[in-house]
Amino acid sequence: MEQGALIIETAGRELLDITARITVWLASARLVRGTLSVYCRHTSAGLLISENADPAVLRDLRRWLDRLAPETAGYEHDDEGPDDMPAHIKAMLTGGALTIPFAGNRLLLGTWQAIYLAEHRARSHRREIVLTGIGE
Amino acid sequence: MEQGALIIETAGRELLDITARITVWLASARLVRGTLSVYCRHTSAGLLISENADPAVLRDLRRWLDRLAPETAGYEHDDEGPDDMPAHIKAMLTGGALTIPFAGNRLLLGTWQAIYLAEHRARSHRREIVLTGIGE
Amino acid sequence: MEQGALIIETAGRELLDITARITVWLASARLVRGTLSVYCRHTSAGLLISENADPAVLRDLRRWLDRLAPETAGYEHDDEGPDDMPAHIKAMLTGGALTIPFAGNRLLLGTWQAIYLAEHRARSHRREIVLTGIGE
Repeated sequence: MEQGALIIETAGRELLDITARITVWLASARLVRGTLSVYCRHTSAGLLISENADPAVLRDLRRWLDRLAPETAGYEHDDEGPDDMPAHIKAMLTGGALTIPFAGNRLLLGTWQAIYLAEHRARSHRREIVLTGIGE
Repeated sequence: MEQGALIIETAGRELLDITARITVWLASARLVRGTLSVYCRHTSAGLLISENADPAVLRDLRRWLDRLAPETAGYEHDDEGPDDMPAHIKAMLTGGALTIPFAGNRLLLGTWQAIYLAEHRARSHRREIVLTGIGE
Repeated sequence: MEQGALIIETAGRELLDITARITVWLASARLVRGTLSVYCRHTSAGLLISENADPAVLRDLRRWLDRLAPETAGYEHDDEGPDDMPAHIKAMLTGGALTIPFAGNRLLLGTWQAIYLAEHRARSHRREIVLTGIGE
C-alpha cells in the first residue's frame, strides 16, 4: 500500500486533466497491480473521467452542467457567491472519489479516457487530491 | 481487512449525516492506513459527500434533486407510490458506493466534508450500509 | 488480489444486467472477503446499480436520461453522430467505476440490486470491464 497527495492549483471553472500527475505518482509507488483510489477533499470541486481527444467534449460537458445547475436558481445558500451552490450540486453529480485499476504499474484507463479535476468555483483554488494505491 | 455493517433508521426524505457512525466503526477496526469502502445496499437511497457547515446547502441540494426528478413525470413504474421512481433516479445520480482514504485511523475527509445517507423515499426506512476497510 | 476482464457485446442503448457474469468471475477468484472494483474503460458507456425486479424501472431510467441529455441540444462536439455527446454526458452522470464489497465469495448486493452496463451509444459496441478483487 502507498498513500500520498497531490496539491493542484486550478484556474476557475475548468476541467483540468490530471492524468499525467497521477501517472507519475503511481510510477513512483512500488506497486505493480491493484487499484488506485483518487479522492478530492472538497465539496465544490470533483473528479470525473471523460474523453481526452476532442476538447469540444469538455466544453459541451461544462455548458451542459451550467444549464443544469444555473447560478440564478434562487438558492437559499448564497453567502459565498452565486457560483457556490451550483458548485456543490455539480460536485454531487460527478462525485469526488474514483477507484481505477492498474497493472504493470500503469493505470488501466481506456484509450480515450483521462482523469479530470473539475473546478466548479469561478475563481482559482488550491485543491488537495489523496492517492491510495492498494495491491502488490 | 475489516468488514462490518451499520443499520440506520432514516426519517423520510432526508440527507442524514452518518460521518460520526462511520468514524466510530473505523476507530474500532485495527487498521491505520488504507481505504474505506462505504456501500449502500438499496436502490432508492444513496450516499454522497457534501458540505457540513451550512444546513441550507443540504436543503438546496434536496430541492434541486426534487425539481430534476419530480414525482409527477408520468413514470411507467408507479406501483410503489409516486416517490419511488424519483428515488431510483436520485440514487442513480449520486450513487451508493464511496471509497474514502484514511490514515492515522482517521478518514481523510476535507475540512468541510461529511458523508450523507440520502433517503429518497417519503417514509422512514431501515437501511444497511456495508463498511470494508482495506489497508494495514 | 485477483484481476481480470470481461468483454461484453452490447446492443445499442440498453441497460444490460452483468451481475451474473461478475458473480461467475468472482466465484473463480480465490478470495473470500473484500472489495471488488468494477471499471468500465469507455467514455460513452458506464456502470450503475439499480433495481432488478421491474423492467419498467430500467425503461423509466433510460427515458429520464434521454430527456436530461437530448440529442438535439446544439452540442459543439457532433462529429461522431448525434448520440455521441449525450452518451458522454450520461456516462459522466452515472460514472463508470464501482466498488462493491463481498463476503463468503459472494457480492454483498442488496436483495433488489443488480449491476448494469449502460450502453449509451445508439449502435452495439464491444465494451471492456476490468475486475479487481482485493481482500483475503
